[in-house]
Amino acid sequence: MNKQQILRNRPTTLPDNSTWELISSALPQPAADEVLVKTHYVSIDPAMRGWMMDRKSYLPPVQIGEVMRAGTVGEVIDSNGHPTFHVGDILSGWGGVQQYFTTSGEMQYKVDTSMLPMAKYLGVLGMPGMTAYFGILDVGKVKEGDVVVISGAAGAVGSLAGQIAKIKGCRVIGIAGGPAKCNYVAETLGFDACVDYKANNVYNDLSSHCPQGIDVYFDNVGGTILDAVLAQIRLNARVVLCGAISQYNSTEVYGPKNYLSLLINRGTMQGMVVLDYVSRYQEAGAQIGQWMMQGKIQSEETIIDGIENLHPTFLRLFNGDKRGKLLLKVIED
Amino acid sequence: MNKQQILRNRPTTLPDNSTWELISSALPQPAADEVLVKTHYVSIDPAMRGWMMDRKSYLPPVQIGEVMRAGTVGEVIDSNGHPTFHVGDILSGWGGVQQYFTTSGEMQYKVDTSMLPMAKYLGVLGMPGMTAYFGILDVGKVKEGDVVVISGAAGAVGSLAGQIAKIKGCRVIGIAGGPAKCNYVAETLGFDACVDYKANNVYNDLSSHCPQGIDVYFDNVGGTILDAVLAQIRLNARVVLCGAISQYNSTEVYGPKNYLSLLINRGTMQGMVVLDYVSRYQEAGAQIGQWMMQGKIQSEETIIDGIENLHPTFLRLFNGDKRGKLLLKVIED
Repeated sequence: MNKQQILRNRPTTLPDNSTWELISSALPQPAADEVLVKTHYVSIDPAMRGWMMDRKSYLPPVQIGEVMRAGTVGEVIDSNGHPTFHVGDILSGWGGVQQYFTTSGEMQYKVDTSMLPMAKYLGVLGMPGMTAYFGILDVGKVKEGDVVVISGAAGAVGSLAGQIAKIKGCRVIGIAGGPAKCNYVAETLGFDACVDYKANNVYNDLSSHCPQGIDVYFDNVGGTILDAVLAQIRLNARVVLCGAISQYNSTEVYGPKNYLSLLINRGTMQGMVVLDYVSRYQEAGAQIGQWMMQGKIQSEETIIDGIENLHPTFLRLFNGDKRGKLLLKVIED
Repeated sequence: MNKQQILRNRPTTLPDNSTWELISSALPQPAADEVLVKTHYVSIDPAMRGWMMDRKSYLPPVQIGEVMRAGTVGEVIDSNGHPTFHVGDILSGWGGVQQYFTTSGEMQYKVDTSMLPMAKYLGVLGMPGMTAYFGILDVGKVKEGDVVVISGAAGAVGSLAGQIAKIKGCRVIGIAGGPAKCNYVAETLGFDACVDYKANNVYNDLSSHCPQGIDVYFDNVGGTILDAVLAQIRLNARVVLCGAISQYNSTEVYGPKNYLSLLINRGTMQGMVVLDYVSRYQEAGAQIGQWMMQGKIQSEETIIDGIENLHPTFLRLFNGDKRGKLLLKVIED
């Protein structure tokens, strides 16, 4: 049997018990040229909140009754004559929140788990890693000496974006929630400092760490933190709009009241979607892998066991109860 | 005697009778290497509202007791050995709201009034013209076929930005207040259409004129109109932040609630300050002048007589009672 999490109701605020339904269905059989994949880990991402909304976006909305869309990593356990994938291959791609799926291989990539565990391919070497890499380098255009601020600094994307900025010679200030995470960001990840937004003093804390102002802001959170940064940007600052997790469950989005600081400072605020960089994933993966081998990049996963725990696991994205990449383990021992 | 408008009180909302004081002082005498200029016209600009605020910005604030900063055009009537300027020369630059001033010539440019009246050098060939030119071309990066929306379309900057976009082969939709201005924008300036924001239907009106969405938005107004546009931008849209006249007299700025449309659409919102392009003013002036000679660009001035009328004239920027460039004539007949 195959356990699947189906979208049942579109949430208007935080997802609740009625958002998804766990169902059991027959094990799917691969059609001609398809493989059957047994998923080990499902990626739990803030972007999933957006995919549940019935609106035009960079991907079509998940439909009511469909398996919840998600990135996955798993093992090929059967092949019906697939030309390139074989039993035993490990595939990363769009498997959805379910234990098994069949695929022709489109948007599935074979990954090498001889050196690194599977879970890394949903984190530092997966979409969060790609997002951080292209966001901080191509959109943020960081250069040596820049003062860089990263929100969600203990998260999968922010933690890597900040470490890449450090490698590039920037002064990097993180923003995270609570002393434990801030300590992790500063001590383990090696940021120059980390501001605890739960201390409710973000503007002043940033000001003391960035007395000359901020050149690059990598925004994962939106809301009043975005405003606190905008008020302190320098000439020609770049704001990378990667996400706005503080706003995803609001019925009305908080618009940045300090956006005119972009005018005065000739700043740029630019949105990014990682899917645009798919042709360069290989380049980014090779570079990130090299930095990992050199010990220049730390990464971590928070793994929650059991496909039935999708809902409480998803809530951790919003209550902050996780560190690094959040994964749902759906394979049963 | 020299009449001068002095900043007396910093306004928190709209300037009132106590904001400026008209004083008379002795005619200044040019020091060595200086000239004395008799000002004909003073440029009345939305940016002046910002210069009155006591905050860090792209120019220092006007101080209480100082002559109000403004762009001017006038005639050299005396020279104390200035190396390049002579009596009879017409200078455009920062003269302030006063009838006479002395200058060493810094930030003053000699202009040629043999073909065009003096007033044009504060409008289509002055800072508004430069702002439109670099804003729509360098920041907006308009290209043939783009759908371009311009707010403040009947104003000095917007009217020119839209006409340049038309020259570049774009489809151009203006936004202006009232049927008379909209008619001017569409008929005289040749925009493809103009939306009357006073009809309170901006989102739907834009939607009907731009069914495929908006590539470039040149924003002079901010507020809910910016939100209406952001909701309809296309992939890789560019938003040029030139001004936000709807917000200049508010104690709290309206933040654009739809800013996350930049994320979904990989859009860019970029601030601009025309002073950054001073080294290219000559290039822009030559090109705009050529387009004027070819009849491709229309421009207009609203000229109010009398230095004593600074306050009611300034209010016209905000109540919309003007068209094209707003000027205060300070020379007495």
